[in-house]
Amino acid sequence: MTESPDAPEPAADAPADLPVVRLKPKANARAIRRGFPWVFADELVTDRRTKALEPGTIAMLEDAERKTLGRVAVNPKSKIIARMIDTGGRGIPDHAWFVARLKRALDLRERLYDAPFYRLVHAEADGLPGVVIDRFGDVAVIQPNAAWADVLIEPLAEALAEVTGVTTILKNAGGRGRSLEGLDAEDMALRGAAPDAPLRVEMNGATYMADLTGGQKTGLFYDQRENQGFAARFARGQDVLDVFSHVGGFALAALANGAASALSVDGSAPALDLARQGAEASGVADRFDTRQGDAFDVLAELGEEKRRFGLIVCDPPAFAPAKPALEAGLRAYERVAKMSAPLVSPGGILVLCSCSHAADLAAFQGASLRGIGRAGRRAQLLYTGQAGPDHPLLPQLAESGYLKALVFRL
Amino acid sequence: MTESPDAPEPAADAPADLPVVRLKPKANARAIRRGFPWVFADELVTDRRTKALEPGTIAMLEDAERKTLGRVAVNPKSKIIARMIDTGGRGIPDHAWFVARLKRALDLRERLYDAPFYRLVHAEADGLPGVVIDRFGDVAVIQPNAAWADVLIEPLAEALAEVTGVTTILKNAGGRGRSLEGLDAEDMALRGAAPDAPLRVEMNGATYMADLTGGQKTGLFYDQRENQGFAARFARGQDVLDVFSHVGGFALAALANGAASALSVDGSAPALDLARQGAEASGVADRFDTRQGDAFDVLAELGEEKRRFGLIVCDPPAFAPAKPALEAGLRAYERVAKMSAPLVSPGGILVLCSCSHAADLAAFQGASLRGIGRAGRRAQLLYTGQAGPDHPLLPQLAESGYLKALVFRL
Repeated sequence: MTESPDAPEPAADAPADLPVVRLKPKANARAIRRGFPWVFADELVTDRRTKALEPGTIAMLEDAERKTLGRVAVNPKSKIIARMIDTGGRGIPDHAWFVARLKRALDLRERLYDAPFYRLVHAEADGLPGVVIDRFGDVAVIQPNAAWADVLIEPLAEALAEVTGVTTILKNAGGRGRSLEGLDAEDMALRGAAPDAPLRVEMNGATYMADLTGGQKTGLFYDQRENQGFAARFARGQDVLDVFSHVGGFALAALANGAASALSVDGSAPALDLARQGAEASGVADRFDTRQGDAFDVLAELGEEKRRFGLIVCDPPAFAPAKPALEAGLRAYERVAKMSAPLVSPGGILVLCSCSHAADLAAFQGASLRGIGRAGRRAQLLYTGQAGPDHPLLPQLAESGYLKALVFRL
Repeated sequence: MTESPDAPEPAADAPADLPVVRLKPKANARAIRRGFPWVFADELVTDRRTKALEPGTIAMLEDAERKTLGRVAVNPKSKIIARMIDTGGRGIPDHAWFVARLKRALDLRERLYDAPFYRLVHAEADGLPGVVIDRFGDVAVIQPNAAWADVLIEPLAEALAEVTGVTTILKNAGGRGRSLEGLDAEDMALRGAAPDAPLRVEMNGATYMADLTGGQKTGLFYDQRENQGFAARFARGQDVLDVFSHVGGFALAALANGAASALSVDGSAPALDLARQGAEASGVADRFDTRQGDAFDVLAELGEEKRRFGLIVCDPPAFAPAKPALEAGLRAYERVAKMSAPLVSPGGILVLCSCSHAADLAAFQGASLRGIGRAGRRAQLLYTGQAGPDHPLLPQLAESGYLKALVFRL
C-alpha cells in the first residue's frame, strides 16, 4: 500500500505497531477531550491508509495539531468511524485491560443487586464502546455491536469468565448496531454450551423465564426492572393490563405484589408462552391470563367489552427508533394513550413507556398527554422512569437515555 | 360599588351568588381548557368590580366569548390572579367538595405507603391550587399558599380531620408563596395543640426527628424519600458524606442501610441536633458524626484533610429559585460539584441535587458535569431522581418539577 503524502506520522509516544488517525481541523477535539466518545466519518482525515484499516483496528487518535487524544477503535465502514477506547495507555487492549474494565462494571452491579442478574456492561458508559453484556447467573450474553469487539472477542470472553466466574458465554450477533458496522449476524457459544431450556430470573418478587437461545430467542430485558417495581406498588388488589407484555415484565411483578388479576397482551405467542411459564414459576398462574394479537386490536376489543383496570402498562416496541420515523412514531404513542386511557378505572394508574431514541421525553410526554386528553381524561404525573442503574449513561452522550416510563394517575 | 360599563354579567348557568370574571381575548383559553390551571393578571378583564374582589373570592371564569370555563379562586393582589378550582360544579367549595378532593389524594398515598407519613396534598396536581398538606401520623400541617385556602381554611381543616382522622392540624404560614399572594405569616393550630417535642418519622429504615413547631421549625421534607432510598443502595460498608444535610435525610438512610460511617454537614445547629437525635433513635449514633459550618468551607477543610468517601450527597438549598438568580445559581452548583468530586473515592458515588425552579435539568446537569470535569474526574450517570410520587405534577405546569437528583459514579 502506498501512503498518501499527508498520511499522519505515528505519534512520538505511540508504539510503532498502532496506526495513527487524525482529526480534521473542523472536528470537535474539545468535546472529545471532555469525554464525547465518538468520531464521525467526516471528522477524520480519511486518507487511503485510514480507509484501508481493517474494521476494528485499534489506533492512536490525534487532534489536528497532532496531539494525542487516546486510543480509538476504527471502523472505516461505520458512520462512527472511531470510538474512544481509552484516553490513556498504549497498544491493543489486552487481558489485563479487559479485566480492569469488567471489574469496575461488576463492582457497580454487585453494589446494586443481591443476585447476579443484570446488565453487566452498558457500552460506552462502562468504557466498552458498542459492547453490551447481560448476565443471567452463570450465563453471560455478549452483544458486540462494534467491530473492535468482534476482533477482540476472545480476550473479552476470557476476561469475562475470569472476573465473573460465568461458565457459559454466548455471542448474540442480532443487534441492530452490527449491520451499521457492517458485521455479520452469526450467534455462537464462546464458552460452555447454549442452555437448552429457558433460564429462571428473579426480579421484583416474580420469576421470569428467559429464552436466550431458543428458536424465538425472546430474551429478557433488564432495563424496565425499576419501573416494573415502581408500577407494582400500585398493583395490590387491582386488575392489571400489560400491553406489549413480552415475557410478562410488568404483569408478573404486579401479580407477585398482590394484583387481583393480570392480563398480558402481546403479538408473539412464544413470548406469551414464556410469560405463562413465568406465572407458573411465580405461583400466580391462577390470576394470570394472556391474549395474543395486535395490541391496538386487543385494546379496541377490551374497550368494546367495557373492561376496566386499576393499573395499565403499555410498553411498546420503539415506534420512533430514528429521526425519519419520529412523526409517525409520536402518532402511534398518542394512539396507545388514547386507546388505553378509557380502560383505566377512575383514580387508576396508566404507565406509558417509550424506548425510542428519536422521541425525547418532552415529545413523548406531549404525545401521551394528547392521547389521554383525546380520551377525555385528565392526568397527574406521578413519576418519570428511566432505564435502571445497571444501564448507566455517558453524560456526554445524551442520546443514550432512550427509555422513558411515564406513570400517570387518571 | 359602581359597576364599570363592561363588567361581565353572571353566566346563565352560574348561581347568582358567584361573581363572574372574564378572560381577555388574548388569553389562552385553549390552554386552560386543556388543564393549565392559572390565569395571569394581564389575561383577565380587570374592571373595577374584579379589582375589588376580596383575595380568595370564588368566581366563575368565562372566556372572551362568555363561555364558562369553570370555578376559579381570584386574588387581585397576585400575579396569578385566578386559579382554576374546578372545571365543573357551582358555588363556593363546601365540605363535600373538600372531602372528595382529599379522599382522592389520600387514596394515592395509601396505595404508595404503609405508614401515614407523606405529602398528602401537592397543590395544583391534587386539585387544591396553592395548598400543600404534609402528614406526620396524627398530625397534619397545612400550607395555604393561596388566598382562597386562607378564606376556606375552616371547611378544609374540617374535611381533613374527617377524611384522615388526624387529631392535630397546624397552619404553617411561612411559605414563600404567601407573600406573593399578599398573605400574612401567622402560624396557628387549627385542631388540637402543636406538639411540644419533635415527632418521629420512619423512612427508608431510619428514624427521623421532625420539629414542626419548635423555635427553629426545621420541619422535614418528604420529597427526597425515593432518592434517599436509592442512594442508600450504595451505602453498605461505605463512608458517607451528607452535605447540606438538614436533619440527616441522606445520612441516616445510608447508616440504616449499612454505611460504615456518615458525616452530616450543615450550617444549622438545630438541624444537626435533630439529625443526632434521629441517629440515636435509629440506633446508628456510634457511626454518625456532624460538622456545623458553611458547606463550602467544610468541603475545603475535608479536602485539606484528604478525606475520601464512597458516597457523597450534596442537597443544597435552592441556589437559583427564580430566573434572575439563574446564572449565579448555576455557578454555585458547579462549585458544589467541583469541591465535592475530589472527595469521592475511585468508583464512588456522587449525588448532586437541585431544588431550584429556575435551573432546568439540562442546565443543572451541565453545571454539575463542568464541576466534576474541573475537578479532573469523569462520571457515569446512573440515575436521575425527582421528587417522590406523593409530589405529583400537573403535566400542564411543567414548572412544578423542581427537584432533581443526579446520581453519578466517578
